This record gives sequence, C-alpha cells and structure tokens, in this order.
Amino acid sequence: MKNFTYYTPSKIVFGKDTEEQVGQLVKDSGATKVLLHYGGESAKRSGLLERVKDSLSAAGIEFLELGGVVPNPRMSLAYEGIELCKKEEVDFILPVGGGSVIDSAKCIAYGAVYDGDVWDFYSRKATAVDALPVGTILTLAATGSEMSDSSVMTLEEGWLKRGYNNDLSRPLFSILNPELTYTLPEYQTACGVVDIMMHTMERYFNHTSDSQLTDAISEALLRTVLDFGPVVMADPKNYNARAQIMWAGCLSHNGLTGAGVDTDWSTHQLEHELGGLFDVAHGAGLSAVWGSWARYVYTEDPRRFAQFAVNVMGVSNDFRNEEATALAGISKLEEFFQSINMPISISDLGIELSDAEIDELAYKCCFMGKRTIGGFKKLDQDDMAEIFRMAR
Amino acid sequence: MKNFTYYTPSKIVFGKDTEEQVGQLVKDSGATKVLLHYGGESAKRSGLLERVKDSLSAAGIEFLELGGVVPNPRMSLAYEGIELCKKEEVDFILPVGGGSVIDSAKCIAYGAVYDGDVWDFYSRKATAVDALPVGTILTLAATGSEMSDSSVMTLEEGWLKRGYNNDLSRPLFSILNPELTYTLPEYQTACGVVDIMMHTMERYFNHTSDSQLTDAISEALLRTVLDFGPVVMADPKNYNARAQIMWAGCLSHNGLTGAGVDTDWSTHQLEHELGGLFDVAHGAGLSAVWGSWARYVYTEDPRRFAQFAVNVMGVSNDFRNEEATALAGISKLEEFFQSINMPISISDLGIELSDAEIDELAYKCCFMGKRTIGGFKKLDQDDMAEIFRMAR
Repeated sequence: MKNFTYYTPSKIVFGKDTEEQVGQLVKDSGATKVLLHYGGESAKRSGLLERVKDSLSAAGIEFLELGGVVPNPRMSLAYEGIELCKKEEVDFILPVGGGSVIDSAKCIAYGAVYDGDVWDFYSRKATAVDALPVGTILTLAATGSEMSDSSVMTLEEGWLKRGYNNDLSRPLFSILNPELTYTLPEYQTACGVVDIMMHTMERYFNHTSDSQLTDAISEALLRTVLDFGPVVMADPKNYNARAQIMWAGCLSHNGLTGAGVDTDWSTHQLEHELGGLFDVAHGAGLSAVWGSWARYVYTEDPRRFAQFAVNVMGVSNDFRNEEATALAGISKLEEFFQSINMPISISDLGIELSDAEIDELAYKCCFMGKRTIGGFKKLDQDDMAEIFRMAR
Repeated sequence: MKNFTYYTPSKIVFGKDTEEQVGQLVKDSGATKVLLHYGGESAKRSGLLERVKDSLSAAGIEFLELGGVVPNPRMSLAYEGIELCKKEEVDFILPVGGGSVIDSAKCIAYGAVYDGDVWDFYSRKATAVDALPVGTILTLAATGSEMSDSSVMTLEEGWLKRGYNNDLSRPLFSILNPELTYTLPEYQTACGVVDIMMHTMERYFNHTSDSQLTDAISEALLRTVLDFGPVVMADPKNYNARAQIMWAGCLSHNGLTGAGVDTDWSTHQLEHELGGLFDVAHGAGLSAVWGSWARYVYTEDPRRFAQFAVNVMGVSNDFRNEEATALAGISKLEEFFQSINMPISISDLGIELSDAEIDELAYKCCFMGKRTIGGFKKLDQDDMAEIFRMAR
C-alpha cells in the first residue's frame, strides 16, 4: 500500500425530502447571499427550484440565479457567474443539478475570489489558494463531483476541455435525494452508470502491489452498479436502485477507491478530447473508448484484468489461460455497456472519425507533445492515436 | 436504504514517516499551544514522542504534556487535562497512542471549553456545543476513534463506562503510520482485530432491506481483516498486513459501514459493563460475548446470519437449512477468534462470574431499568442477564 491522504470533508445528507434542509445548511455555514446555479428547464418544471428557493427564503438567505449550464460546461457562463458574484458580493455557490452544474459552480467559486483569469487553474498556470464555499443539490448520479475535488470545464476558444483538482472545491455539503433522479432521460441515466464505474476503474487498473482492501471495496462497488444499472434503466422510479447507484457514484470519486494505489485515468483523458471536439456525453464517450484502451494495455498485466474479470464481471477463471480470462472480462463489460444502450465504439456515437481528426485528438490529448497519460501503461501521442483508431 | 448523514471531515495522512508532518498540520490549523497526550512508556521508549516534539518545535508550536492514559481511560486524568488546558490556554489536543488516548483527548477537548462537568455529556445530561480541535497520531489499529465521532470514558466512582458521540470530536487530522504498530504486544494486536471487525458487525446485523452497497463494502472489509489478522499475529513487522488492518480500522468506524442501515450495538453495550467492572481489554471483552449474543438473537433473521456465514466467513451455503448455515458462520468466527488467542467466553478471560455479578452487569447495562439495547433484537434486563449467563 502506498502512502496516501484521504480527505472527504463534504457532509452528505442522503435520502427522501433532504432538499428541504438546504436553507438551514446554508445558514449553518454562516453565508448570507447565494448564487443559485442550474441548467435548463427541468429543475424549474419539476418544482425543485421553487422548493429550494422556499427553503432559502425561510432561512433568511438572499439569492441570485444563474441558469443555462450545458453538458461539458462552458467557460463563458462561468465568467458571467464570476462577474455576478464579485459585483453582488455573493458568499456561497449553490448548484442544483448534475456534475456539469456542480463543476461550473466550482469554477465560479474559484474565480469569484481570484483577481486573474480562472482558466489559469485549468491550464496549470496557477494554483488556487481560496474559493467560495459550495453546497450542492444533486439531480444526476454520475460524476461524483458532489464529494470530489475535481471540476472539468470547456473553453470555447479551441474547444479545450480541462479538469482541475483542488481540495478547496470539495463541497461543504451535498444533498442526495434519489427521487430527484427519477425523471432523468434513459440516456443520461446510462451515461451516469458508465461514469460511476469508470471513476473506480480508473483507480482499479494499477500496478500497486498490496491493494487488497481498496480492491475489495472497489469490486464491491462495481458489482453493485452492475446489479442495479439495469434496474434503473428498466424501472426508473425504483427508489432503492436509484439510491444504490447514487451512493455508489458519490463513493466512486471521493478517493475511497483510490486509497493507497496508483491510478490510470487514460480513458478519461482520451474522452475529454472527444467531448471537447464533438460535445458527446461524458459517460458515452468513456464507454466508446474503454474497450479499445483495455485491449491496447492489458498485456502490461493480464493478471490484473483477470482479477477484474473474475471478481467484478463474474467470468469463470480459466486457470490455464490468464489472457483468455482477461479478454473475456473486457468483452463482458462491453456487453454490459451495450445492454444499457451505451456505445462501445466512436462510430456508435454517430461520429465517423477521419485520420486527420484522430491526429488532432491525439495531438491535443498529449498537450501538443508535452505529456504522456496513463498509470497502467504510459501512453504517448502515437499510443493515443492508435487507441482512437481501434475505437473508431 | 434509509436516510442518512455521512460526515467524515478528518484528514487521514496515511503511510510511512507521516508523523513527521505533525508540526505542519497543527500549524496549518492555526493552533499555537498543544496538549500532547499519551499513555505509558512505550511512546517514549520507541522515540516517537521525541520525533513528535521535534516536529512541533520545528513548526514553532508550544506544547505541554500529559501522559498516563490507561486502557478504559479514566475520568480523573481527563479532569486533570481539562484543568491544565484551561489554566494554560491550550488550543489543540494532540493524542499520541491508541483509542484510549484518543478518547481521553476528546473528553479533554469537550471539557476545556465547557463550564460544567464534562461527564454531563457521557451521562446524557447535556449536549456539547463546542470542543477544542483534536489531531491524532495513531499507534494501535482498533477503535477507529481516529476518524469517528465517539469517545468512551470510565468514571472511577461506580466504575461506569460510558460513550459519547458528537461530530465535534471528529479529529481534524489523523496520522496513520502502520510501522508505529509493529511493536504492539500480540494481545493488543489481536484485541484490535476483534474491535475492528465488531465495529462493522454492529452495523451489519440489521433488518434494513436494501442495504446492498453497504453490505458489500462491509463484507469486503471483514474479509480483509480475516485475511490479514493472522498475518499480523505471525509476522508483526509485515508492513502491508499492518497497513490493511489499520486502514480497515479507520473505515470500520467512520460511518461508511453504517450508511443507510439500522445498527445493533448490543455487544458493545454488554462489553462496556464487563470492561467497567473488571477492566478487561475492550476487544477481548467483545469476542468473549459476541458468540453468545449471536446465538441468542440469530432466530430474529437467520437469513442475515446465513449471508454473513457465506459472504464473510466463507461457509458453504446449506440451501436446505438456513439455520445450519447461520450457526456454522457463528462457530467459524469463534474459531477465528480462538486462532488469534482471543476469548470466546467470559471464563476465557479468567473471570468466573457469580449470579450476583451477572445481575449487577445486566442492571447497569439497562441503565437501572431505564433502557433496552440492540437494533437486531431489542434486549431488556432479562435478555442481557441471559446472554451474560450464556457467555459465562
């Protein structure tokens, strides 16, 4: 087990009707003026936004609103939010929505107390030393942003999609009511299932010896998502299935499944380029690329993929042929993705990648030749291009 | 899944040489004057205390010392610490030791900012509204106090052992270096293994339907402790085994294994009386009582005990006889306890309980008739006496 720091200060308030506590939770923080941040019309239509406003008002909290966050959240709106916060002296950001809304809120939280351009953090030019507090009301189980230190934003100029991780952005609290996810479109639900699994798998595929407890917890989490993913697809108002998926999403990205181990993150990095260039849903981009990544890298340690196949995917161990076991696990997860209508290739996304586009994706993914990606297998620009070609 | 709040703000700094960071961690908190709290001579002999003092001094932190904490930590020493903190205007408590030292530190942290008698909290006469910050350096994997909200103290007058839970006492940080547990006596190591398992099992035995993810994580944790418990007994300087056990101890009592489920806690309550009256080691008291508790209550839901037997203890499922599977699991855990030299009866502790003592234990455990205990099966004074008799 490697040395590690585990820090998850966000208070999770989980269950039915918990959004009614939001006013009191903001008040307990000492804040007085909130930026209520959200996406499109669904939060309005469902009556959720009204309930949130009522709770804030009842607690004597002032608020401003900024809606319009889209998937792959844009910097232009975040800049607008930062201006608003500075002008109106907002002291708390309250995103109501999924990971895009929360990530945008975190970006605003950094920017509202920074004199420079907040993109400095996402482009690695500066490190944030302060941020406004963020509290979240989650309406989509997927990104884990409700308990994580990460925020992923897209700069329209050049369509650059970049993530920034800093403990300052871990939410003060997150309200998780599984019922708020009942009305999600099927496609978003499925994308969430993929994203949740990938947050654990990006940490699971490592070369750390002696990762037994973290492995066992990760495998437990993945099996639970495999069990309940199909249930939420077939029965969207199944409270328990929604709850299992929502709690798994939260734990999958808070650091628990990475405690003491090296991590990979290649699939995320590859997807970030796809998402930046083609605006595909994050979860769908991940499932479109993962199988190709796995087949490209598994020979680095077939035993690890065999463990995944047996302990997570329920494949029978072929003791005489570890590679066969490993490959069967990869195929079985792709079959699972297909069973919940998720793509397993880029063409499944409706995108026919040209050779020039593959080169562009790889060139951007390696930061114009400045980085490699991947902990399980280090990938350079050529490797990235080859995986995009395999996934085409 | 039931509604729940999950709140684990303690920053865990895990791994080799991490105690060297203590000065900086205290400094980052803004504190300037520390009460260094510890037990006997072992922390001095090992050189750990000197290293801690050096780190504090290097960071410019003043400190006072209060040693002498014993297992089943006494209120008399805590009162002394509270006086000292008030007089010297201490603003941070730094326990270096195991659960007893940390629990005593938490008691001092409450008392140092309270005008009344700190025992008011433990006797349920008052609720704490403030506490000094606590940061810990753990030297024994067992109680989980390094990340939990609980503190258990013994009042010498009447030998009352009582616990108090409050989020205020969750440590600001906890430093976990598995190497610091290398020199533990075998008996304390084994007691720790039992305690860690019991913190998860007290939550695992419940009637909550739909606890799949929490169950799976709990089972993963318990299997890991079963795997590595014998390793640390046979090979006390095995870094990885010590690390797995230490991390399991931390997660076992931070709320993770109780997320969304009802809990039991009978075995702990029964043991608290034993520990109060006879000053037995906590883990040994738990293993002495657990099997009798289990056999007394399993008929409430044999299926739950069968799941434990199969998923945790590796018992083959007897599909035609759920009760047989359940009982085989209980026996197999008792065999495990015996294999690490832990008692499975009170006489194994060297205590021959008289009928009068059984009555006294049960009378105190039910708070003189004022409470029942147990979530899995509600136990009154007669039930408690019967379990003590079975465990005799």
